[in-house]
Amino acid sequence: MNVYFDNAATTAMSQAALDAMIPALEETWANASSLHTPGQLAKEKLEQAREDIAGCIGALPGEIIFTSGGSEADNQAIISAARWGAKRGKKHLVSTTFEHHAVLHTLQKLEREGFEVTYLDVHEDGMVRPDEVEAAIRPDTCLVTVMYANNEIGSIQPVAEIGAICKEKKVYFHTDAVQAVGHLDINVKEQNIDMLSLSAHKFHGPKGIGCLYARRGILLSNIIEGGAQERGKRAGTENIPAIVGMAAALKDILTKREENETRITAMRDRLIEGISEIPHSRLNGHPTKRLPGNVSFCFEGIGGRISASAARYEGHCHFLRFGLYVGVVRPIPCASGDRPAP
Amino acid sequence: MNVYFDNAATTAMSQAALDAMIPALEETWANASSLHTPGQLAKEKLEQAREDIAGCIGALPGEIIFTSGGSEADNQAIISAARWGAKRGKKHLVSTTFEHHAVLHTLQKLEREGFEVTYLDVHEDGMVRPDEVEAAIRPDTCLVTVMYANNEIGSIQPVAEIGAICKEKKVYFHTDAVQAVGHLDINVKEQNIDMLSLSAHKFHGPKGIGCLYARRGILLSNIIEGGAQERGKRAGTENIPAIVGMAAALKDILTKREENETRITAMRDRLIEGISEIPHSRLNGHPTKRLPGNVSFCFEGIGGRISASAARYEGHCHFLRFGLYVGVVRPIPCASGDRPAP
Repeated sequence: MNVYFDNAATTAMSQAALDAMIPALEETWANASSLHTPGQLAKEKLEQAREDIAGCIGALPGEIIFTSGGSEADNQAIISAARWGAKRGKKHLVSTTFEHHAVLHTLQKLEREGFEVTYLDVHEDGMVRPDEVEAAIRPDTCLVTVMYANNEIGSIQPVAEIGAICKEKKVYFHTDAVQAVGHLDINVKEQNIDMLSLSAHKFHGPKGIGCLYARRGILLSNIIEGGAQERGKRAGTENIPAIVGMAAALKDILTKREENETRITAMRDRLIEGISEIPHSRLNGHPTKRLPGNVSFCFEGIGGRISASAARYEGHCHFLRFGLYVGVVRPIPCASGDRPAP
Repeated sequence: MNVYFDNAATTAMSQAALDAMIPALEETWANASSLHTPGQLAKEKLEQAREDIAGCIGALPGEIIFTSGGSEADNQAIISAARWGAKRGKKHLVSTTFEHHAVLHTLQKLEREGFEVTYLDVHEDGMVRPDEVEAAIRPDTCLVTVMYANNEIGSIQPVAEIGAICKEKKVYFHTDAVQAVGHLDINVKEQNIDMLSLSAHKFHGPKGIGCLYARRGILLSNIIEGGAQERGKRAGTENIPAIVGMAAALKDILTKREENETRITAMRDRLIEGISEIPHSRLNGHPTKRLPGNVSFCFEGIGGRISASAARYEGHCHFLRFGLYVGVVRPIPCASGDRPAP
């Protein structure tokens, strides 16, 4: 039996998602922007999925823009705040050093355009400090963007506290919640989140689909220009099969959230306990404020394949490391029997 | 029986596309950027699909960037040429008045940034004149973008002639071939096309997937920043199921191209003949240089729902019109029996 340890990278589709998506591929293929009956039936499915997804994060349906995934949603959120800010002389953004590349590279693009970005350090416990966020906000700050949970070291950030600070300071707050949605409790209104990115394939939905929640009243800039889909804010024929697959996956995983959390956290902690006994090992990130399915260790003197956010955090480790993730454990098919499992 | 007349808007998935995509949704869900076995098997499928699609349009595999669809590909092609041009003092683009919104709105965005765009008129026969393209090219022109076949009036443009002119004038040539791929012969090398956009759901493939062909050596700008997927030019976890579905759909439709063309052109011409007998009717576009599956008429004094490209062409009609498309005729399921067919 193979065990899949890479659910932070992507997940297998759930049966609920497949059961929603496959019939839609076969039947609900009409253009949701067409006026004829099949088009309008597709439109109904689109709007039902929008309502379902909005409901899962405490948003209104009209606050959801479907995108091709989390990266596009991150790009759109940050670019939108920057364009809005630039018109008001607010060309400063606050973020952290361990964001996903979709955030970091977008911020770097803005820096090349003349924006200024304050990157807050991540502390040794893998956490961003709300008081440091507050101190970084300036009169010309247009956006604070801090991820909900880190994709490498798994630490869960104090988004509600950061949200409250941003609300008080009247600065937009975006969170890349790609690793969090489906796995943690989220309510954008209670947590004062203005914009949130999510991606279906991180919670057993299909690839190529995600969405941006943007609080009512936020003026979005387009990343993809063209047709009037998504209230004119995201062009391209609506991908109904993937959208209904995403809604089904999200509803399904949330019905199992408590059960999953208990079961996966127990596995996580058992793995952490065992690996901790290896000499020269050290757990990355926070011991308890971490994703149920995340285990990340470093080993003194052992190199590994690390990505940007781990590298940024590396300053606290003083030696190289590799990450190890644990998620929903299930056998995976290996079509090529002669290859060793990784 | 219902007959579907909206294949220019979108198409049903072919059995070949479903047969490729559904098993991939179930099995090939690993992250193609992961180093483990399932990831590398997904990567193999990705590269096979890239090779297949490149082969279908006469391109090299390394010249294909997968995108979320035709709109994104159009945006990326035009923005890339503009960013390249701006660095060389070339801030002029040539296009036509009847391009798809994904092109027109991107050009308008560039105009707001200080670029200049020459929009060539479309003649009464629905055609762009190559000599007018040639005359519009200036020393500071960075791009000519002319669609391969129009999505409303169906006329097929002289892309090879335009390509030859652009090659001689050393100006990049992009064509939005979303309506053409799978339905017309395309060879990007022979036709001197530097960049080409295509979309799977226009040739019985899945929605949410397309690609940009960009000739080797062209420096692309990113529309979506983030991970290093697609040679760093398009971020986001690769959507393998949709990509293999697209490749299967394209290969399948091309095996039936001649047969489809003969059959559908005959239906088209019969329909055109019949509608032409209605008083005050007039065929839009070219009588013969039109997509096999396109019928577009205007009727004096009758209003309709027209989109941008038809509106641009409208100057030649002197009255309002509605479009009527004919494509692969097949019964469509209507889930709601009590609604009248459109």
